[in-house]
Amino acid sequence: MEATVREMDGGVAAAAGFVAAGVACGIKRDGRLDLALLHCPGGAVAAGVFTRNEVVAAPVVLARGRVPARDVRAVVINSGCANACTGGAGMAAAEAVVAAVATALGCAPEQVLPASTGVIGDPLPVKRLTAGLPAVVAGLGASGATAFADAILTTDTRRKEAAVEVELAGGRVRIGGCCKGSGMIHPNMATMLAVVTTDAQLDPATCQTLLSTVVATTFNRISVDGDTSTNDTLYLLASGSSGVAVSGEEDLVRLAAGLARVCGSLALQIVADGEGATKLATVQVTGGRDGLQVERVAAAICRSPLVKTALFGQDANWGRIVAAAGAVGAGITPETTRLWLDDLLLFAEGVGTGAGRSPAAAAAMHAHDLTLRLDLGQGEACATYWTCDLSFDYVRINAEYRT
Amino acid sequence: MEATVREMDGGVAAAAGFVAAGVACGIKRDGRLDLALLHCPGGAVAAGVFTRNEVVAAPVVLARGRVPARDVRAVVINSGCANACTGGAGMAAAEAVVAAVATALGCAPEQVLPASTGVIGDPLPVKRLTAGLPAVVAGLGASGATAFADAILTTDTRRKEAAVEVELAGGRVRIGGCCKGSGMIHPNMATMLAVVTTDAQLDPATCQTLLSTVVATTFNRISVDGDTSTNDTLYLLASGSSGVAVSGEEDLVRLAAGLARVCGSLALQIVADGEGATKLATVQVTGGRDGLQVERVAAAICRSPLVKTALFGQDANWGRIVAAAGAVGAGITPETTRLWLDDLLLFAEGVGTGAGRSPAAAAAMHAHDLTLRLDLGQGEACATYWTCDLSFDYVRINAEYRT
Repeated sequence: MEATVREMDGGVAAAAGFVAAGVACGIKRDGRLDLALLHCPGGAVAAGVFTRNEVVAAPVVLARGRVPARDVRAVVINSGCANACTGGAGMAAAEAVVAAVATALGCAPEQVLPASTGVIGDPLPVKRLTAGLPAVVAGLGASGATAFADAILTTDTRRKEAAVEVELAGGRVRIGGCCKGSGMIHPNMATMLAVVTTDAQLDPATCQTLLSTVVATTFNRISVDGDTSTNDTLYLLASGSSGVAVSGEEDLVRLAAGLARVCGSLALQIVADGEGATKLATVQVTGGRDGLQVERVAAAICRSPLVKTALFGQDANWGRIVAAAGAVGAGITPETTRLWLDDLLLFAEGVGTGAGRSPAAAAAMHAHDLTLRLDLGQGEACATYWTCDLSFDYVRINAEYRT
Repeated sequence: MEATVREMDGGVAAAAGFVAAGVACGIKRDGRLDLALLHCPGGAVAAGVFTRNEVVAAPVVLARGRVPARDVRAVVINSGCANACTGGAGMAAAEAVVAAVATALGCAPEQVLPASTGVIGDPLPVKRLTAGLPAVVAGLGASGATAFADAILTTDTRRKEAAVEVELAGGRVRIGGCCKGSGMIHPNMATMLAVVTTDAQLDPATCQTLLSTVVATTFNRISVDGDTSTNDTLYLLASGSSGVAVSGEEDLVRLAAGLARVCGSLALQIVADGEGATKLATVQVTGGRDGLQVERVAAAICRSPLVKTALFGQDANWGRIVAAAGAVGAGITPETTRLWLDDLLLFAEGVGTGAGRSPAAAAAMHAHDLTLRLDLGQGEACATYWTCDLSFDYVRINAEYRT
């Protein structure tokens, strides 16, 4: 399968049939890009995955009733304002933006999917947004994908894009996308947005199934318990512009592998750019009784502030990792549990091996990327999650964010 | 009931029948007190509540099989080493310490309850502990309660004691105690120890029932999901030295109220001394369908790093509070939910009231103590939790802890 998926440069316009742009319309006070538009002139099949928070932003309410769908023409995203907890006025604002985009592009409002990200509770500055529309429409092009990717960022320190080519039975298709998300130190407040496009021909049901399946092992592996922010949104749009249909199960498997590569890369880029992050830790839990057990243990380790501060302190404090795994009530047994830092066995048969204070452990903790593997010794299930450390800068960024 | 419970000074020796002491035996490298001994020469009924972590320290394994019990003579606690994840050697070390204390006090090992706190994984320095025993036994006295309270601390910045007098039908009894715990910014790793004593006459079953009941609304209200460290231990010892028996339900209610006052005070002292804490926030969730719902919502707000960093930043960022409440899947409905900061209504009918950016809100956020009240508008259930903020110093303390 590997040979059928090849990485390439690009983002939301890597696939044929899409053009994009990003401009500054004045929502962010510092003049950074804050209005992003993706256009699919020929129409696209669209699927979406949304936050499971019980408090949802107006654009999420609007959009989740509209996908899966055929003939979607555009995605409009603003950063700098979440349009969440804004009531009826917020719904009207989201509808006004969508209507203005539809007018500008000559389609129906139902063919435009919205998303927003930023501070909760502030009213959406609709006039600034609509005033910025002529410029963003004028900028639409394949080369505008970069500005699109920039315009959806908030506290992110860098653009996040990924793209692949996939060889199907009927020919070559492309999948590309971008995302934003940086408050991932505690992934339950990810405030993540992502847009992925492909030029494969897909029907709405297949598009939605592919997306929902791939999310489980990519974006949801950097999240905990399905907890989410008010605005989390992930779109997959399929233009069909390659002329290549998905025929048979082998094609589906290949397309899913390509989509997983793109979503996995975007998810890892989010963790690596976590607010204040200085480390990227891969947390593998193996030897579990079932999938639920290994997922709960991995998520518990990834969200533990004591584990995360130990990562920041570059301290191979394995006791905190074992304690975090034990605290979640997933039925682990210390005497069968083993913990590795990269290739170093730190804990086995209920006790430390002594390697935790070795020079090799110190060297491993000083690297930017490291792997923690916890084998539960109970069965065959495994799961891989990703997390970053908890640093001074995480506190600074989130204490200063709104002020 | 209020008049029947009066606060007084003192700790574990405020109740008759108990003497205590604390010394430095060299487990902590900086010469601070690290060995604490409580002695009840006449014997005491004892109850205990322990961590629910699946990875438990040797002293917890030893002790939880021994309570509830009659004729307990001593509690021995060391700080500086958790004796957790230490296997068979750790069990032998805990047993050796208990045996040495029993010899020194002239009782059986089964009459001695142990507890430990500190770094996970290091071997317990038994020789230092037993070498320190003569000094700590020689120091036993009512005035030694202060040194006892100091000797159980780790990253705590101050001693934590509380005591009350309770008027029962048959006369006056006293309840007093102390605790340690500072890593409570994320309460699931509380590493909490507490010892409470009373001179009331109690049978073991009543003693255990009282303790387990009171824990639910005190120490567990600063904890989340029942998550716990490897070493959490809370003992209640009743010497009966007052000669006052508990007779009838009214006495039980009064004694429970007194115990709740002591445990509640100790729990609040832990939050207020949370690692790096600059704020003490009371989180009340009212108007819930049932107790489970309000507890889940309150715990979610208390553990949210985005809420905690907003507290540190003194920012009335109510959107983060509402989003944290919505993320936990407890069935909240934004349109019936209202949020107050002290007396300021910040959120109602699904939108912000505008008060979040007022000078009054800024003033409330600048105070050390503040109350967040979230009314779910669904019923009558309520719960009160406590939390502190997430500051630079939390990260510093936990990044540097072991190194």
